Amino acid sequence: MKLLKYTVDHIEEVLIDARGDIEARFNALAIPRGSLGRLEELATVYASIKGTTSCTIRHKKIFTMAGDHGVAEEGVSAFPQQVTRQMVLNFIEGGAAISVLARHIGAKVIVVDCGVASYLEPQPGLKIKKIGLGTKNMAAGPAMSREDAVRSIEAGIELIEEEFEKGIDIIGTGDMGIANTTPSSALLSVLGRMDIVSVTGRGAGLDEESLQKKIAVIKKAIDINQPDPHDPIDVLAKVGGYEIGGIAGLCLGAARYRIPVVLDGFISTAGALIAHAIEPKVNKYLIASHVSAEKGHRMMLKLLNKIPLLDLNMRLGEGTGAALGINLVEAGVKLLHEMATFQDAGVSEPRLE
Amino acid sequence: MKLLKYTVDHIEEVLIDARGDIEARFNALAIPRGSLGRLEELATVYASIKGTTSCTIRHKKIFTMAGDHGVAEEGVSAFPQQVTRQMVLNFIEGGAAISVLARHIGAKVIVVDCGVASYLEPQPGLKIKKIGLGTKNMAAGPAMSREDAVRSIEAGIELIEEEFEKGIDIIGTGDMGIANTTPSSALLSVLGRMDIVSVTGRGAGLDEESLQKKIAVIKKAIDINQPDPHDPIDVLAKVGGYEIGGIAGLCLGAARYRIPVVLDGFISTAGALIAHAIEPKVNKYLIASHVSAEKGHRMMLKLLNKIPLLDLNMRLGEGTGAALGINLVEAGVKLLHEMATFQDAGVSEPRLE
Repeated sequence: MKLLKYTVDHIEEVLIDARGDIEARFNALAIPRGSLGRLEELATVYASIKGTTSCTIRHKKIFTMAGDHGVAEEGVSAFPQQVTRQMVLNFIEGGAAISVLARHIGAKVIVVDCGVASYLEPQPGLKIKKIGLGTKNMAAGPAMSREDAVRSIEAGIELIEEEFEKGIDIIGTGDMGIANTTPSSALLSVLGRMDIVSVTGRGAGLDEESLQKKIAVIKKAIDINQPDPHDPIDVLAKVGGYEIGGIAGLCLGAARYRIPVVLDGFISTAGALIAHAIEPKVNKYLIASHVSAEKGHRMMLKLLNKIPLLDLNMRLGEGTGAALGINLVEAGVKLLHEMATFQDAGVSEPRLE
Repeated sequence: MKLLKYTVDHIEEVLIDARGDIEARFNALAIPRGSLGRLEELATVYASIKGTTSCTIRHKKIFTMAGDHGVAEEGVSAFPQQVTRQMVLNFIEGGAAISVLARHIGAKVIVVDCGVASYLEPQPGLKIKKIGLGTKNMAAGPAMSREDAVRSIEAGIELIEEEFEKGIDIIGTGDMGIANTTPSSALLSVLGRMDIVSVTGRGAGLDEESLQKKIAVIKKAIDINQPDPHDPIDVLAKVGGYEIGGIAGLCLGAARYRIPVVLDGFISTAGALIAHAIEPKVNKYLIASHVSAEKGHRMMLKLLNKIPLLDLNMRLGEGTGAALGINLVEAGVKLLHEMATFQDAGVSEPRLE
């Protein structure tokens, strides 16, 4: 709890373009005003977090946080639980979608075992921050203890601290965990005071019958556990997951070190909701990469007041949307720094402004 | 006319995933079905154009087509005409937005003088395909002769042929030309049978009074010239531009060599409309990178039946949107090729499909 409290106490408010020098720089560039649209916004957010217009992006790191969920035994996922472990190995081997997209954008993937349901051998490319062998079935009681919820968040903070020394300019979040749309929908329902049906989707591909079962399971989990919407750690403990807590920790830890966070999809944003409920100042450090095809993600983004950069009908997780988002942030930052001004390039300014 | 006719005669129809092997490959990959959304669509379009699933993208080329417009003398742009020439030099120096974004995605920019209003010295990084020293004022008569309209299209085809030997896997289109939203709106109004007011926007930043003048100028140009909507070359000649014809030629030439074309914004899509009106088979070779903030672009994309990949409120041109779009196509193609299958990675398949 000490690390979490210390971290939260040290998160500073971001003032967007406090000195007006980012806007002044864009206005000096040899383009019609505002014509780079959201790329200018991304550069502005990035430079504001860093507190300087002369920032660049070199070290890009995507954390793919893996955990298992006891609620999988209720049959709420199209895939068997061992897929979490199998995919972790696929991430390490470099054969997964996030492996491909991270290479594409020049980012490093850090695969984290937050609580896979079996022991994984320590090996290069894997960080072990195991809180437990999967959560308990939230339809029968709390997913984890309050202590473990805090530990899962602190594990995320530790990851940032461990990588900080090696260099880290921007992070992306990602997830892997069979059944993890179920706790994510439950979190959204509780924190957003929303009807369960409206926030529950088909995850990796449920049919109608299984979807109805999933909705019933979430209802049962909330009824049994009575998570307190004013206490995000209670919500995480009762209807959350280890990797979701880890993602919340990444958001808080990154904010404490003034590192921008590019969120992936539904599960990552559930983690961000927890972080934001713990400390709202975290919000300005968050960038929404895309809106997932998973029902409910749009509502999560609305709660965070974020407009996603991309809407490509993706719903994979792993950090795949975040990778594409980081690439756009980098484009914006490069434009801010590398473009010539009207004066540099000897270009005439507009007559009509 | 010979080159244009020959090219059009040799454009083949694209059959999307004719053998079903692209879908089969995606279904074998260790992800829930369809979970990569439009990235799968992009890979499918690319591989279908190439006619093989084992395609990769190495040579990415963005053609930034520059031309001047006699109609600029009517005061329809916020910028003075010499900016076209100044920006061409900025492209060559590498200080423009497209220069930065092309470096970001690993593409080469080919800057083309299609008809800048002054002579540019031959120099490395510049292709000279000059049809004239700017078009004539279309509010007083045809922008160019029918012969020059054909020559401008053939210049675009020649560019593809010249680059083809050096290697070219995918192209992006781009434009530079003070006042060129004016002919682009005129083209859209004529080819789409649309009301001028609804297709005319503020370009690089007109105020309300200048916008009303621009609308009146377009109306006058169409009234005086009476372009025939059934004859795209007549439309291009009367209310088009040299760089717009050049972009139409790029689309046709690329299609003839089975090269995918990633369209930029409003001006590029005006060129694509001309190409599509000449030969509808070109359509399947076209990918819409983004929807521009320029009014009317969404309508152009609708005419081409394209859903843009990005909506980032950009309105710069130069090929900036195309650069971001190419990057997404490349991401999709890499996913198709580099990801492990369920079998490769030893990942269990879904139970519920």
